[in-house]
Amino acid sequence: MTKKVAVLTSGGDAPGMNACIRAIVLACERADYAIIGYQHGYNGLLNQEYCLLNNNQVHNLIQRGGTVLHSARCHEFKTDEGAKKAAENLDELDIDTLIVIGGDGSFKGADHLSAFWSGQVLGLPGTIDNDIGGTDATIGFYTAIETAVTSIDKVRDTADAFERIFLVEVMGRHAGFLALHAALASSADYVILPELFEKPDVTLECITEQLNERRKQSDHISYIIVLAEKLWPGGIDNLAKALTEKTQSEVRPVILGHVQRGGSPVSEDRILATKLGAYAVSLVTKNVSGVMIGERAGQIVEVPLKLTWEESKPLDKQMVTTMKTLMNERYA
Amino acid sequence: MTKKVAVLTSGGDAPGMNACIRAIVLACERADYAIIGYQHGYNGLLNQEYCLLNNNQVHNLIQRGGTVLHSARCHEFKTDEGAKKAAENLDELDIDTLIVIGGDGSFKGADHLSAFWSGQVLGLPGTIDNDIGGTDATIGFYTAIETAVTSIDKVRDTADAFERIFLVEVMGRHAGFLALHAALASSADYVILPELFEKPDVTLECITEQLNERRKQSDHISYIIVLAEKLWPGGIDNLAKALTEKTQSEVRPVILGHVQRGGSPVSEDRILATKLGAYAVSLVTKNVSGVMIGERAGQIVEVPLKLTWEESKPLDKQMVTTMKTLMNERYA
Amino acid sequence: MTKKVAVLTSGGDAPGMNACIRAIVLACERADYAIIGYQHGYNGLLNQEYCLLNNNQVHNLIQRGGTVLHSARCHEFKTDEGAKKAAENLDELDIDTLIVIGGDGSFKGADHLSAFWSGQVLGLPGTIDNDIGGTDATIGFYTAIETAVTSIDKVRDTADAFERIFLVEVMGRHAGFLALHAALASSADYVILPELFEKPDVTLECITEQLNERRKQSDHISYIIVLAEKLWPGGIDNLAKALTEKTQSEVRPVILGHVQRGGSPVSEDRILATKLGAYAVSLVTKNVSGVMIGERAGQIVEVPLKLTWEESKPLDKQMVTTMKTLMNERYA
Amino acid sequence: MTKKVAVLTSGGDAPGMNACIRAIVLACERADYAIIGYQHGYNGLLNQEYCLLNNNQVHNLIQRGGTVLHSARCHEFKTDEGAKKAAENLDELDIDTLIVIGGDGSFKGADHLSAFWSGQVLGLPGTIDNDIGGTDATIGFYTAIETAVTSIDKVRDTADAFERIFLVEVMGRHAGFLALHAALASSADYVILPELFEKPDVTLECITEQLNERRKQSDHISYIIVLAEKLWPGGIDNLAKALTEKTQSEVRPVILGHVQRGGSPVSEDRILATKLGAYAVSLVTKNVSGVMIGERAGQIVEVPLKLTWEESKPLDKQMVTTMKTLMNERYA
Repeated sequence: MTKKVAVLTSGGDAPGMNACIRAIVLACERADYAIIGYQHGYNGLLNQEYCLLNNNQVHNLIQRGGTVLHSARCHEFKTDEGAKKAAENLDELDIDTLIVIGGDGSFKGADHLSAFWSGQVLGLPGTIDNDIGGTDATIGFYTAIETAVTSIDKVRDTADAFERIFLVEVMGRHAGFLALHAALASSADYVILPELFEKPDVTLECITEQLNERRKQSDHISYIIVLAEKLWPGGIDNLAKALTEKTQSEVRPVILGHVQRGGSPVSEDRILATKLGAYAVSLVTKNVSGVMIGERAGQIVEVPLKLTWEESKPLDKQMVTTMKTLMNERYA
Repeated sequence: MTKKVAVLTSGGDAPGMNACIRAIVLACERADYAIIGYQHGYNGLLNQEYCLLNNNQVHNLIQRGGTVLHSARCHEFKTDEGAKKAAENLDELDIDTLIVIGGDGSFKGADHLSAFWSGQVLGLPGTIDNDIGGTDATIGFYTAIETAVTSIDKVRDTADAFERIFLVEVMGRHAGFLALHAALASSADYVILPELFEKPDVTLECITEQLNERRKQSDHISYIIVLAEKLWPGGIDNLAKALTEKTQSEVRPVILGHVQRGGSPVSEDRILATKLGAYAVSLVTKNVSGVMIGERAGQIVEVPLKLTWEESKPLDKQMVTTMKTLMNERYA
Repeated sequence: MTKKVAVLTSGGDAPGMNACIRAIVLACERADYAIIGYQHGYNGLLNQEYCLLNNNQVHNLIQRGGTVLHSARCHEFKTDEGAKKAAENLDELDIDTLIVIGGDGSFKGADHLSAFWSGQVLGLPGTIDNDIGGTDATIGFYTAIETAVTSIDKVRDTADAFERIFLVEVMGRHAGFLALHAALASSADYVILPELFEKPDVTLECITEQLNERRKQSDHISYIIVLAEKLWPGGIDNLAKALTEKTQSEVRPVILGHVQRGGSPVSEDRILATKLGAYAVSLVTKNVSGVMIGERAGQIVEVPLKLTWEESKPLDKQMVTTMKTLMNERYA
Repeated sequence: MTKKVAVLTSGGDAPGMNACIRAIVLACERADYAIIGYQHGYNGLLNQEYCLLNNNQVHNLIQRGGTVLHSARCHEFKTDEGAKKAAENLDELDIDTLIVIGGDGSFKGADHLSAFWSGQVLGLPGTIDNDIGGTDATIGFYTAIETAVTSIDKVRDTADAFERIFLVEVMGRHAGFLALHAALASSADYVILPELFEKPDVTLECITEQLNERRKQSDHISYIIVLAEKLWPGGIDNLAKALTEKTQSEVRPVILGHVQRGGSPVSEDRILATKLGAYAVSLVTKNVSGVMIGERAGQIVEVPLKLTWEESKPLDKQMVTTMKTLMNERYA
């Protein structure tokens, strides 16, 4: 065994994290590296809580949601004392490379650790929110879209049956990726997301006008609005109330919530997770550290960890244009 | 054409209503009966709003959620004037048989109509709540279970990853069928439903004790509670807050909501819908009216409409026993 | 620990076997019984290959397909020497109760063992074929229907797009349960299954006549035939060829195959598995042995093992009637 | 109405074709263009068989598999007479733009038509095979991967339960895209596809060596091989037989077949279809014709139709590298 690698998952869990762990373990075995997994995110690193990983343990794992290494928040790790402790623990186990699968908070932690530890630190983007700079998609994003979209497909059945207005809140923290993709793929009639949102009353006006225009064509229509979480002042119930008043129609709110974090990863997430995981292991003997492995325009890229939270990441322009066209540009 | 049949869907939509419409239309064609569909529930009956139905229109329909005939509430129909108007409309079109697919509210309407119309009135149980007497299952119930269970499967991924407590609210109006089936099939740790619920503080005590007992075995456990809607005083957020205080742990609420009403029906709902629909058509020449067609112990039954809301319908005893055993009887 | 229970899975794997193992383990823990699992079916019993089972091992197991105890064929076990060896092994471990989850072949083995072992032997019906007497459904049957039906839903998309004839072969050994349920739930136009099959040329004639009749209404129709495996002389390709000649149309064969055995169990299978598993454990202190636990007309029943293969089990009459009606009785 | 657009679907149907039709219809309505749909591929164009399309007809269509415009082969269209007739028909209806959704055969037809018709001809890539130059993905490809992968997930349950070798044949005509993606995403142990295939005996040797190596670690392993269709001399049964002999183990073949063509499109296909469809309509007033609209490295591109079949399209290099690493390079 020429090298020893450690992996951990941190931050919100995302479908495909297990697929990524599997790829890392198998690639390490092929390269004859030892591989361990720290449990409960950075807490495991601080408490030297880990397990040996091998082929058998990751068999039949690619399709499972969640993370077998568990995840957790860890405030202590953010301190210099925490990072030093972590560095000591890594050295104690003779770890050459630490691979962190997580979101921007996890990468900040990894970057901070780099100041106290001389080993190789690699990040892999795992979050359903896709709010990580330097990579087109993150592990878990595709599955979250699929979960949101199949849920909205079900809501549309009822919306059509009753010709009613539904308001569906999807996750996404402070980015509109999930809302935009879910809205476009579910043929939502309107989408409200951070990057395109101006003022509540402008939005209310646009929705009402578009709805009125559509009702001129037919009395019997359903209407689905996709809303990004944490965006509307007072929350989804507030928006539902305002819309009910403005449109004189019943408006039903649906909050998709934590269902969006779990589930068996779709193929795209499994493939992304597997490619990035295997690539990370191929870097173990290379002189590179403090980077996240991502994918841009179909190419694997190595991005300095800092860029993952400093770089602003815009929505896909063509998708925005398309959504506006279908919503009717006048009201978008 | 010796006979003329009309069908409508009323009340909350349920997966399998379309499968039922299809079976009725095909069975009518085979028997050489004319068949029309009233739209928007009883509203269509009052406004003579209907469409002719045939083989082509119901092709590729069996797997679609919602109802192509649409549904709606109709207060006017509950009045004697409404029922008389409906009777006149049915006679105007020479309808011999009216088939109503819906829940107990729809059956009350159908029963009321019987007092003013001499034609044949047949009910078919369509609701995800399964709260209809005289039949073991209702069309849509199986799909709603499946939707709830696959959602809870996803929640469990995150619950396990973070070893956290989740509270999942499922539909069911005033009956615990959906909560019990979903809890058992999703391996929930606890279930709170009308038929088994005593006092909030007793329930809080039971959950806490069971949780403490399980934590003696391991610090790292997840815990999922399934809650029937409209049951907990102050709602799910209230329960989440109370549990957080009592267990000193984060508790995350998830409301499955309207997602449970839609979706492609699972096979069991398609089969039930098809059997009941075809059987209803086989009664068109028989001297029977004012009944719901249901299934009990694997046999098709004809039940007076009144029984469907008067008869109390208990939970499956063996399922209750099983759930209590797995929850640990002491705390159930 | 007052009692010691062993469980094994035998015969073809079926979705829900893991859910059943989980229920048995949890019910044993609640009753304070020890519980072990023999691996690789009866082979494990012969080779004393087993594992201790507890709560942790069956966590998050309810939704997984296959069987964590593995399964395998075992010819040696059918001999008297094999059964004696098994009895000795069971006694060596002080087993009070052996629970076998499997099909009729597995039950024959269990029954044979009873002649050589004085402990309690209980069977639980686990097979996708539903060809077990004494129970309305078997663990795995509902999931296999769902898998077949969602596959046929996909085939129908292409059949409709090209207005083409498709022939879909489903599993079922020598019984037509899966074929009948899958055909009815997928709105197949025709079904060929052992219980309703007379002669190949009669069937060919019926299909052709029905097809011609439907083509009188429209040139543009798709047509789907569900075929039970091992039924048509020369196999599905032979039937496809014969149909092509007779109908002068392209006929595409699809063999669903082993896909039907796996997958996450649907709720109905999880519930059945859980009820039967928990009930089996409740019998551990009762004076009953050599029985299978099944469910009939919604009630749990205990059935002598012999009946499970001796009793003939008919198709659901109402389903047969319904299928014939929808296929058009003249050609059924 | 300043412009008039016609759309048709041709070649093998693919999930997302309906989503594409919907986007085209809505974008045309927004731009105030008239829009018609030719039915049955190029046959409709030759027979002037078409329907007017509008908002209502494409409501609730985005999630449906197949194509509502139907598809079909059309030999007559390949002749000069056929193309001339088509051109006349298009002029008769005053069509400005013809949009063809299909594969390379369909694009050859569209290109041929361009020689006889002065209107605008646009192609959109719709095929599950992804064998179209000039675009990274084709509409339907993502869904076909997902269908194959969820099927192989089910096969793995049985493979694991019995520790058996399974051989799964996926579609893909003469390209290995589907095989490679499905193999990587389903954690297959080996993949056989056109781009990486040398000689049958080399492959047999590699599989056997890899299998033997893995069996040194454990007797109890399952092993899944993904095979591209039409590749192995004598077909999958031949390979199964050869493997059985060579490995002295049972090998079960599974042919996924036509199931892979249908089904509700996954989000990625819906999004691609919607973007490309809306973009095509945005070209209606532009001076460009004889191109396919595709997506490369996240950017919409316009590619001369000829390139779509002349340009060779390689597999994703990183995926090939990853698959080889995980298969163990020595045997890949």
